[in-house]
Amino acid sequence: MKRTMFFLDQKDMPTKWYNILPDLPVALPEDLHPATGKPVTPDDLAPLFPMELIMQEFSPERYIEIPEEVQDILLTWRPTVLHRAYKLEKALDTPAKIFYKYEGTSPAGSHKLNTAVPQAYYNKKEGVKRISTETGAGQWGSALSIACSFFDIECKVYMVKVSFNGKPYRRIMMETYGATCVASPSMDTKAGREMLAKDPNCNGSLGLAISEAVEDAVSRDDTHYALGSVLNHVLLHQTIIGEETIQQMEMAGEYPDILVGCVGGGSNFAGLFIPWLRDKISGKKPNTRVICVEPTATPTLTKGPYAYDYGDVAGLTPLLKMYTLGHDFMPPPVHAGGLRYHGMAPIVSHLYNLGIIEAQAVPQLSTFEAGVLFARTEGILSAPESTHAIKVAIDEAVKCRESGESKNILICLSGHGHFDLSSYDAYLQGKLSDLEFPEDKMKEALDKLPKVG
Amino acid sequence: MKRTMFFLDQKDMPTKWYNILPDLPVALPEDLHPATGKPVTPDDLAPLFPMELIMQEFSPERYIEIPEEVQDILLTWRPTVLHRAYKLEKALDTPAKIFYKYEGTSPAGSHKLNTAVPQAYYNKKEGVKRISTETGAGQWGSALSIACSFFDIECKVYMVKVSFNGKPYRRIMMETYGATCVASPSMDTKAGREMLAKDPNCNGSLGLAISEAVEDAVSRDDTHYALGSVLNHVLLHQTIIGEETIQQMEMAGEYPDILVGCVGGGSNFAGLFIPWLRDKISGKKPNTRVICVEPTATPTLTKGPYAYDYGDVAGLTPLLKMYTLGHDFMPPPVHAGGLRYHGMAPIVSHLYNLGIIEAQAVPQLSTFEAGVLFARTEGILSAPESTHAIKVAIDEAVKCRESGESKNILICLSGHGHFDLSSYDAYLQGKLSDLEFPEDKMKEALDKLPKVG
Repeated sequence: MKRTMFFLDQKDMPTKWYNILPDLPVALPEDLHPATGKPVTPDDLAPLFPMELIMQEFSPERYIEIPEEVQDILLTWRPTVLHRAYKLEKALDTPAKIFYKYEGTSPAGSHKLNTAVPQAYYNKKEGVKRISTETGAGQWGSALSIACSFFDIECKVYMVKVSFNGKPYRRIMMETYGATCVASPSMDTKAGREMLAKDPNCNGSLGLAISEAVEDAVSRDDTHYALGSVLNHVLLHQTIIGEETIQQMEMAGEYPDILVGCVGGGSNFAGLFIPWLRDKISGKKPNTRVICVEPTATPTLTKGPYAYDYGDVAGLTPLLKMYTLGHDFMPPPVHAGGLRYHGMAPIVSHLYNLGIIEAQAVPQLSTFEAGVLFARTEGILSAPESTHAIKVAIDEAVKCRESGESKNILICLSGHGHFDLSSYDAYLQGKLSDLEFPEDKMKEALDKLPKVG
Repeated sequence: MKRTMFFLDQKDMPTKWYNILPDLPVALPEDLHPATGKPVTPDDLAPLFPMELIMQEFSPERYIEIPEEVQDILLTWRPTVLHRAYKLEKALDTPAKIFYKYEGTSPAGSHKLNTAVPQAYYNKKEGVKRISTETGAGQWGSALSIACSFFDIECKVYMVKVSFNGKPYRRIMMETYGATCVASPSMDTKAGREMLAKDPNCNGSLGLAISEAVEDAVSRDDTHYALGSVLNHVLLHQTIIGEETIQQMEMAGEYPDILVGCVGGGSNFAGLFIPWLRDKISGKKPNTRVICVEPTATPTLTKGPYAYDYGDVAGLTPLLKMYTLGHDFMPPPVHAGGLRYHGMAPIVSHLYNLGIIEAQAVPQLSTFEAGVLFARTEGILSAPESTHAIKVAIDEAVKCRESGESKNILICLSGHGHFDLSSYDAYLQGKLSDLEFPEDKMKEALDKLPKVG
């Protein structure tokens, strides 16, 4: 029998998150206060987040215990399965061994629930009754809605209008779990009203939806804000993915030579690769390659500068040192909605800047081609975000065929594509094209980068 | 740690299907030839099915080996997980222990792939190049499309028009796996053209789509037909569900007192309960209750007569002894599309007639209410078919609360509801109502039952 799935027993689910901050060879640049330009303090963040999450954001501790109540909920779908992609390998006629960690079996359909649950938990513990957030493609909004339903917290989601209209199923899903979901820009916030006054037909952007959700939270006493990617504590919660794969690759008797994942804000892939970086940074496995994959239409790591910028359009968030296309850059409408963000997690940006991890940009059509091949061999219909990772994994496997090398490739497959079938339809009907990156628009946006230091 | 998921190691996946035919206390009534009224012979079925499937239909063997090539593919997603529903139990404040076997993690999103894979395999082995089939809600069509893509077989799906129009994602899913999907009634068959001539706006029915797919298969040399439920060999392939749960309930240290599942054609639930019936029929566990749940709007077991009838509208299939609402009865448009069928698997019908299993009909609104509670507690958004099972499981758990008994309830959760969110939307918005069962229409349809014997 060829073992295609590696199940980790529930008793072996990791009970600690791994915090890379103390192990970074160079300290992570500090976040700055948007008004003063001084390093952000825990108190600055208190209107937005519960104190335990804030402390995680700055924590010097290498390991942070996962609270038992959080573990109990994670056990609803975790540990997730590590798969060996025999059928894809055969179709590619490659000597490479391809593994994929599949996060699509969570009730939310993606990795996002890994952080939504602890975020809801710490808010509940601090007595918070209501959480506001934004969502692009809807993955994060769904995850937070589910987490809030588990902890009986009210949830308000600002959903980028183009997705709100194009993906009604995601909206319904959030409502099924009891959340309220509005199209952003909305009339519910000043940021939204101002944008609608300027452009009543504005399709919205993730940066603007973040402005609305943050404004909602700071303007109400009973409400906190939650973010689904980018921040240190979010990446921390996702390290459970990588910690599980370390045990599962051991079950498979293999060590990965190449890790590959898609990056929008960076959280799914960082969740996978950060635990593996211990061996790379310590020098035990210096040659492990970590490849971040982004769309050529939103090439944050491969074309943006490494600079301080806001996380949102209105400039309400702290200034983060990151690769950025400019906070008011409007990304082209690539179908991988989760990858349409102007910035990148500071930790991912820092690691890339240090040369510890790599990045590649791939055009949209090639990712759908990879996704269809994956569906027809491995069966799983992946999210358009995840197909970016599949595309590069296939490229690497083909290189192995050509060189005769048998490398081990580990993919982070962040979610399923059940709510993205209209994109597959457009691809199959030949109606999809590769989108140009508007370099001039980026330059305009970069001119507006905040002056720092 | 409360164990919520019971993983079965891949090496423990069952390697044999269990065939209940030799263990039935009374022999199953024979199928009859629609033209002669004589018992159907294997040769009669040869234009439709490969001989190995036909032999399984009549097999006297208690156990049938699962071919290695089929096992290899089943291992892509099997064994599936058995869950303990602690959070639902807590919400119900019940001493009952609720378990559910979740088949929604298959690439098709339901149990249907369990039989699609062996059906495609046996056809491939016999050199068949093309398979035609029908689909209602799209679950079966998706499953067969995936199975055919694994074995490189062409696949043509006749999809009931009301679903074809209302569920475009299911159609796109089939196309992503390389299948061709048309709305039924279609212009591609005589049965379809005749119906369209009579009623150009006809919304179709499963019975009519079966007629089209059967006609397609018998009119072409390169094509066989495949059915996703009802027949003995289909139920046989689904017994892997029940065989897995026997090992998993042992891991949980419990024996189920009540098994509950939804029935349309009957295959998901029969797949779960048939292996457990060994203990009931042998007298080892005589008190195990098996409850089939159907919609009050399509009450085949609870209101139909036990009689010989066709499986399709045009009368092309063999005559099956089953509970039936009449082969040209058009079921009301309940949202659980997979339960909108006029008949019931002969094996399920026979067991019900013998009093070995029970049946209950439940109205639509109560099933959505149960589905929403399940989503908000267990996280999983179930198919509207599966919520029928949840509804009755909840009723039984509430009875336990009232009586103080701690019964073990095992649910067959046949699939996810990611493509059924417009139904949830209608429910949440209060636009859904319970549908009356048109008793007079059934009586008209029953007047047209074929005269037999």
